[in-house]
Amino acid sequence: MATVRLWTDDEAEKDPAVKAVFDDIRQARKSTFINNFWRALANDPPTLKRTWESLKQIMGGDGPLDPLTRELIYIAVSAANGCSYCIHSHTAAAKQKGMTDAQHMHLLAIIGMAAETNNLVNTLQVPVDPEFLVE
Amino acid sequence: MATVRLWTDDEAEKDPAVKAVFDDIRQARKSTFINNFWRALANDPPTLKRTWESLKQIMGGDGPLDPLTRELIYIAVSAANGCSYCIHSHTAAAKQKGMTDAQHMHLLAIIGMAAETNNLVNTLQVPVDPEFLVE
Amino acid sequence: MATVRLWTDDEAEKDPAVKAVFDDIRQARKSTFINNFWRALANDPPTLKRTWESLKQIMGGDGPLDPLTRELIYIAVSAANGCSYCIHSHTAAAKQKGMTDAQHMHLLAIIGMAAETNNLVNTLQVPVDPEFLVE
Amino acid sequence: MATVRLWTDDEAEKDPAVKAVFDDIRQARKSTFINNFWRALANDPPTLKRTWESLKQIMGGDGPLDPLTRELIYIAVSAANGCSYCIHSHTAAAKQKGMTDAQHMHLLAIIGMAAETNNLVNTLQVPVDPEFLVE
Amino acid sequence: MATVRLWTDDEAEKDPAVKAVFDDIRQARKSTFINNFWRALANDPPTLKRTWESLKQIMGGDGPLDPLTRELIYIAVSAANGCSYCIHSHTAAAKQKGMTDAQHMHLLAIIGMAAETNNLVNTLQVPVDPEFLVE
Amino acid sequence: MATVRLWTDDEAEKDPAVKAVFDDIRQARKSTFINNFWRALANDPPTLKRTWESLKQIMGGDGPLDPLTRELIYIAVSAANGCSYCIHSHTAAAKQKGMTDAQHMHLLAIIGMAAETNNLVNTLQVPVDPEFLVE
Repeated sequence: MATVRLWTDDEAEKDPAVKAVFDDIRQARKSTFINNFWRALANDPPTLKRTWESLKQIMGGDGPLDPLTRELIYIAVSAANGCSYCIHSHTAAAKQKGMTDAQHMHLLAIIGMAAETNNLVNTLQVPVDPEFLVE
Repeated sequence: MATVRLWTDDEAEKDPAVKAVFDDIRQARKSTFINNFWRALANDPPTLKRTWESLKQIMGGDGPLDPLTRELIYIAVSAANGCSYCIHSHTAAAKQKGMTDAQHMHLLAIIGMAAETNNLVNTLQVPVDPEFLVE
Repeated sequence: MATVRLWTDDEAEKDPAVKAVFDDIRQARKSTFINNFWRALANDPPTLKRTWESLKQIMGGDGPLDPLTRELIYIAVSAANGCSYCIHSHTAAAKQKGMTDAQHMHLLAIIGMAAETNNLVNTLQVPVDPEFLVE
Repeated sequence: MATVRLWTDDEAEKDPAVKAVFDDIRQARKSTFINNFWRALANDPPTLKRTWESLKQIMGGDGPLDPLTRELIYIAVSAANGCSYCIHSHTAAAKQKGMTDAQHMHLLAIIGMAAETNNLVNTLQVPVDPEFLVE
Repeated sequence: MATVRLWTDDEAEKDPAVKAVFDDIRQARKSTFINNFWRALANDPPTLKRTWESLKQIMGGDGPLDPLTRELIYIAVSAANGCSYCIHSHTAAAKQKGMTDAQHMHLLAIIGMAAETNNLVNTLQVPVDPEFLVE
Repeated sequence: MATVRLWTDDEAEKDPAVKAVFDDIRQARKSTFINNFWRALANDPPTLKRTWESLKQIMGGDGPLDPLTRELIYIAVSAANGCSYCIHSHTAAAKQKGMTDAQHMHLLAIIGMAAETNNLVNTLQVPVDPEFLVE
């Protein structure tokens, strides 16, 4: 289905640039599983490396937003963009980070409501209230 | 700029259906301020009432996600949909609910990263890993 | 604000290809008014001509959908795509073709509801029922 | 494929909140068929109920826009948002409400044309004509 | 899966309007292959003809942008809109027109980066610099 | 208008992390001009640095796609996403890199056509031809 070949573990072993990223993903996630996104990105080692390092910096480690909240935001953007793969992978990640069924359903309701009001605002072309502007 | 007239307080006072919703918004928010979104929706009292009640249920009161997290998700969807008004109003709401500058910037980075990987996945047409599917 | 120059009537008079389209727009609409969309497209006469002829064929003349319904559909797509100019111009066109305030507000509610359920479906990744497929 | 479980009829029978909505859907549609959207939403009874009641109010019953026109608008938004499930379900609904093949194809042409001009306008950044503004 | 029937070669042979377009596609592409897009559009001969002629004018023949660059732009728009079919068909077309793997991966990186910064800009609501405006 | 403060040159001078990026932008572009995007990102130095370095790698220097083609792709994604700021800034960049008016208008036509066919495909739900799949 992909527009590029998905790299197998054997192929990744033989390319030092890809192997280095796959090794780091496995170590960071404490799992041998490498999902198809990385196997597709392996066709472009610089983008593979850049994307993984950015994701590790933003989604991993400490930060002002906790790991579960980050995944909820990621799902919300992916739903708005209709990215099926991304919704599946980040819903799985959110569950691993403790998302309960009730939180999943609350997320669902917020995404739906936001999309509805985004479109109400567009249709009405509501002007921004001066109270909302940053001085 | 709007495609409909924005209702003034005087007009809202004279329409019982609109007045009832405006009064409830003011009471729920403990503020006399009614933003333009509601003044535009006043042209359609049933949608005004339905939208406010849905928002109050989902964004207000108790729930499995805390009020600030809800606003962050709302901003994320609004940014993905490019709704300028919604980004402004919910960024203001998030600040009122305690969003720090560091949280705002972390949210920024996640939204950008999610949009990037959504588009990488689209271009590559990555198939969903069976591991991500719900049994 | 545009990324190209907006052509004045004087300039359009001097370019036969642009003049021919502007004349045809004026005749079809029985009005001297040429809106900015066409003044911007005048920078590319083949696209100006192709776009006008396609629009005239689809939005004008007889057809299985009546003129007002066509405008409502146009507004709906434009709202979903967040095209402010298009929402303004086609809301004006819909009013000219008889859209009542009640119809405008019904349209508003449908657009909002469709966007909400589109996003609920995306978040839930609901599989298509076999009953909906064309044999 | 869904990120949640799809409820069977047996499960729905045992949950009063879900059963009440499923019963109402069946009665309103005069059919025993419950499509997957509702079986997925059953995981969140308040969203199930709210969504069904909003849809019933907006898409069912009397109103300033006729039932078929409402479905055409719904398909248009769903196509612009790329929601495959929604396009399938509302195309089926439109056919049930009398959409002819010729109307379906006219809808197709309008959706395509609107999307094209939305993007022409975006690329050109055409400013809104003062004539289109509501006083 | 389609919401309309896909026309077979036999059916196309019997409809002069469809046959004329299919013949022209085959001649222009020097191939007997007619992809599903045209088989679906055959349900609406005027849209079939209009779409093919527009595409032939814009994507074929001479022009200020070379044929491969045109396909790269087409893929970029299709990825941003999440159109799976279009990404597949235009990636195949780009390869036929000489896109190398390295160019494909560069395209990938640009699409991802553009989507990321589009969303950063949306979240930040950055005002346009006067330096970017056309006088 | 922005949801954050835009940094002045004076403020940037006093923050070593921001100053380092601003200095590098000025050197790479051989210009003292820093556009608002970077002045807004300055509120988040790690995102400022990461975004600039990614952009410099992808949009600057050598690569399989020439600098002007890269800008055309960037504009196409930005138009599809409706990012007004991005369309303005990358149209200016494309002109600096030699985009002629004729190329600009060809780009316009391709973006419009791609968006139209994306939406025709969505409405028709055309299945991917096996011929387009990568083995």
